[in-house]
Amino acid sequence: MPDRLSAQMAFLVEAEKLKTVCRAGRIIDGSRRENSAEHSWHLALYALTLADQAGPGVDINRVLRMLILHDLVEIDVGDVPIHSANGQAHGSAEVQAAEAAAADRIFGLLPAGLAAEFRALWDEFEAAETPDAVFAKSLDRVQPVMLNLANDGGTWPEFNVTYDQLESRVGHKVARGAPALWDWVRVRARAWFAGQE
Amino acid sequence: MPDRLSAQMAFLVEAEKLKTVCRAGRIIDGSRRENSAEHSWHLALYALTLADQAGPGVDINRVLRMLILHDLVEIDVGDVPIHSANGQAHGSAEVQAAEAAAADRIFGLLPAGLAAEFRALWDEFEAAETPDAVFAKSLDRVQPVMLNLANDGGTWPEFNVTYDQLESRVGHKVARGAPALWDWVRVRARAWFAGQE
Repeated sequence: MPDRLSAQMAFLVEAEKLKTVCRAGRIIDGSRRENSAEHSWHLALYALTLADQAGPGVDINRVLRMLILHDLVEIDVGDVPIHSANGQAHGSAEVQAAEAAAADRIFGLLPAGLAAEFRALWDEFEAAETPDAVFAKSLDRVQPVMLNLANDGGTWPEFNVTYDQLESRVGHKVARGAPALWDWVRVRARAWFAGQE
Repeated sequence: MPDRLSAQMAFLVEAEKLKTVCRAGRIIDGSRRENSAEHSWHLALYALTLADQAGPGVDINRVLRMLILHDLVEIDVGDVPIHSANGQAHGSAEVQAAEAAAADRIFGLLPAGLAAEFRALWDEFEAAETPDAVFAKSLDRVQPVMLNLANDGGTWPEFNVTYDQLESRVGHKVARGAPALWDWVRVRARAWFAGQE
């Protein structure tokens, strides 16, 4: 068994690999695909900036923690784009099982107390039932929409996404935690899709 | 004047540019230089993971906020490596003035209350006087050392850094906020430099 601090540092070295996990969407200048580490930072900034969009009872400090931790499992599993496999791959039982195994391994690098604390936050985020998790999920869903809007549709033409699919796969979940935010984004997304007709 | 939510979203779109700011150090697999957005995420994870290294009175929630915001000024100014210009460039009056102007512009995109809140956190971080800022700075200084150790010295040979320079430019500031953490890292850094003799 490594001593406590050595275990913490081993976890932080392993976590570094999230910088090599590629997402589907492109960064704002279109030059390359976004990685999951910088995506996680951007979401944390979303939470700080849009705290007033959260419903009653949401604790932004817990939301921040969830967003910082939420993608670490992708070190083992990779990113599964929301619109890939006609929208079927993302929440599949197979992906969920692989992510749970990744969480066991990665959080398991930490001292037991910290491992349990981080795992509980990740489980809560994934379950998307508590007010904190619902708001965190809203941000995780809305940020890629903003990237696509900045990149002339981005992944939407790539995955043949329609406006109705965007509403059902993404909009519904953003609106659940941040309804006024989705109202703001929806107008802009609808205008982009209307421009394609 | 944009409405409140439009101002918040404009800030989040502008902040996205931090993903294009290149730092000196390489990511763990050596494949490319780290950018300031993923660096900021990694530091937030350091704060969560190493909270028990913080001194009495440190509020990790405020440390997280500082670390998420601390590099946004680099969108205008770029990253100034700690060991560049023989260690003289980083804290120069010229760089500090440019960063203050960048903070005016970037935080100025936000509604007034949020702009003042974020600016105060950034000013506090830069001043490095409160316990929260001192701890945040310790993490900001120690993470690049860990990257260099994972990359066979990384930027040290590039900038002709000696062990004594690492102690005076970096170690001193890490130890100020997290003495046991620097003890742990110092042993490993000293071993790397000893191997070069």
